[in-house]
Amino acid sequence: MQTIKRLDLADAQVMLDAAVAKAQEIGVAMSIAVMDEGANLLAFARMDNSKITGISIAMDKCYTAAAARKATHELGEVSQPGGLVYGLNTCIGGRMVIVGGGLPVFVDGQPVGGIGVSSGTPTQDQEVAQAGIDALLDYLRNSD
Amino acid sequence: MQTIKRLDLADAQVMLDAAVAKAQEIGVAMSIAVMDEGANLLAFARMDNSKITGISIAMDKCYTAAAARKATHELGEVSQPGGLVYGLNTCIGGRMVIVGGGLPVFVDGQPVGGIGVSSGTPTQDQEVAQAGIDALLDYLRNSD
Amino acid sequence: MQTIKRLDLADAQVMLDAAVAKAQEIGVAMSIAVMDEGANLLAFARMDNSKITGISIAMDKCYTAAAARKATHELGEVSQPGGLVYGLNTCIGGRMVIVGGGLPVFVDGQPVGGIGVSSGTPTQDQEVAQAGIDALLDYLRNSD
Amino acid sequence: MQTIKRLDLADAQVMLDAAVAKAQEIGVAMSIAVMDEGANLLAFARMDNSKITGISIAMDKCYTAAAARKATHELGEVSQPGGLVYGLNTCIGGRMVIVGGGLPVFVDGQPVGGIGVSSGTPTQDQEVAQAGIDALLDYLRNSD
Repeated sequence: MQTIKRLDLADAQVMLDAAVAKAQEIGVAMSIAVMDEGANLLAFARMDNSKITGISIAMDKCYTAAAARKATHELGEVSQPGGLVYGLNTCIGGRMVIVGGGLPVFVDGQPVGGIGVSSGTPTQDQEVAQAGIDALLDYLRNSD
Repeated sequence: MQTIKRLDLADAQVMLDAAVAKAQEIGVAMSIAVMDEGANLLAFARMDNSKITGISIAMDKCYTAAAARKATHELGEVSQPGGLVYGLNTCIGGRMVIVGGGLPVFVDGQPVGGIGVSSGTPTQDQEVAQAGIDALLDYLRNSD
Repeated sequence: MQTIKRLDLADAQVMLDAAVAKAQEIGVAMSIAVMDEGANLLAFARMDNSKITGISIAMDKCYTAAAARKATHELGEVSQPGGLVYGLNTCIGGRMVIVGGGLPVFVDGQPVGGIGVSSGTPTQDQEVAQAGIDALLDYLRNSD
Repeated sequence: MQTIKRLDLADAQVMLDAAVAKAQEIGVAMSIAVMDEGANLLAFARMDNSKITGISIAMDKCYTAAAARKATHELGEVSQPGGLVYGLNTCIGGRMVIVGGGLPVFVDGQPVGGIGVSSGTPTQDQEVAQAGIDALLDYLRNSD
């Protein structure tokens, strides 16, 4: 039997709140998804007036990051024509996303979930996702 | 051009919080989804230790209620063998749900979105969804 | 080689216009789809303020009627538990619809397409679909 | 609660008619789809003898433009290998289209829907889509 750690709803809410705050600071309305270690959705928020496509893309970036335990922008680098995993983005019915904005979440070196953000540029999305992770790590440190 | 009203993220958050509180009161961990009038997801939360199936079922109940503007338990009544819309539940690739727990949201008689809840009994799910709607209507009254 | 007859866009437009007029007369906002003999979409209209679910369901009723060359309410009768084709509605990924509102179009005894209507009761939907077919047959008689 | 504007069926019909007229002028039979701000289909027409693939591609170009609020040819430019959003076209189960012919519709600076055209060259498709938008803007000016 295994005992694993993974994100819970309170963790996900901390991440969502921080990500929404960062997106507001940047000035882009975004969709944000948080999944646990099993790549199962914990929490989601779509900011007012953000793009409809952001819903699915945020979730699939989150899925990719949580389930593959890699940042989606890193997968993008190795999925270019001629790259090691060229074609990765059509796997799992296209659910694998290789555009930046999905980040895995590691705590004490263990994969515990992921966060996916969509509707800004990939760089903005990644920045918002990172804000979610930073807030989580602060929160966990303070809960100790 | 049409001008319509629909739920925003603040509304959805009010609904989620009230629904989670009601689920805690009942003592069942649930998944809860809120969509706007276009049947596009606004917010979602899965309570700790709740069923994985609840994620998709809450979303599909929410979709059904928001997009068909009917409570899913009412669709269940008319979808029985021999009923008026027997077979409805396999429409839209099975996204139509006829199990209780999805409620449309009407404000001033206009459809503005939906809420879907899963993981309890259908009656519990419906009660939790109703708690979300009740909280929204209170909130809107107080915002006037 | 085969030479076949099938609906064209002008025919489909005649059917859509008559169906919309009938839906307005009934007082229910509906979605209406018309496909040709190959079960490929020719024309579609969603009336203002009609249900989102009507989009997919009208198309799938239309597909079922055009492709199976049967009225969807007739398929509903033989798809009941114990019936000859019980389970038909989950075929083709759930695209087969057994709820009334889809009608095949026959001209001179030959199947030439289908019409699918959704958002009213199945009886209303079927009535609107029939209005489309009646208008087509009138139009074809007058074009001779 | 949000109050938003979006296309209605009369708007969509104006767009379809103008797009069909432009396609006839160009001399290519096309498929044309119009969606509202929620990326839900309003109206569709497939011209006689046009390609079967045009049905889905027009709809998916329309979805992409309406839901991402960007022209599909612009997404194509930034989705090239090495580009900012390389891999975007396989997102949302491949529903994201990065080939020209899908245009978002903005009225008074607000996103209100989209139009998607398929079966010509991407440049022809885009020209036909633009004819639809131009006709809409004329129509709205004259309705004031």
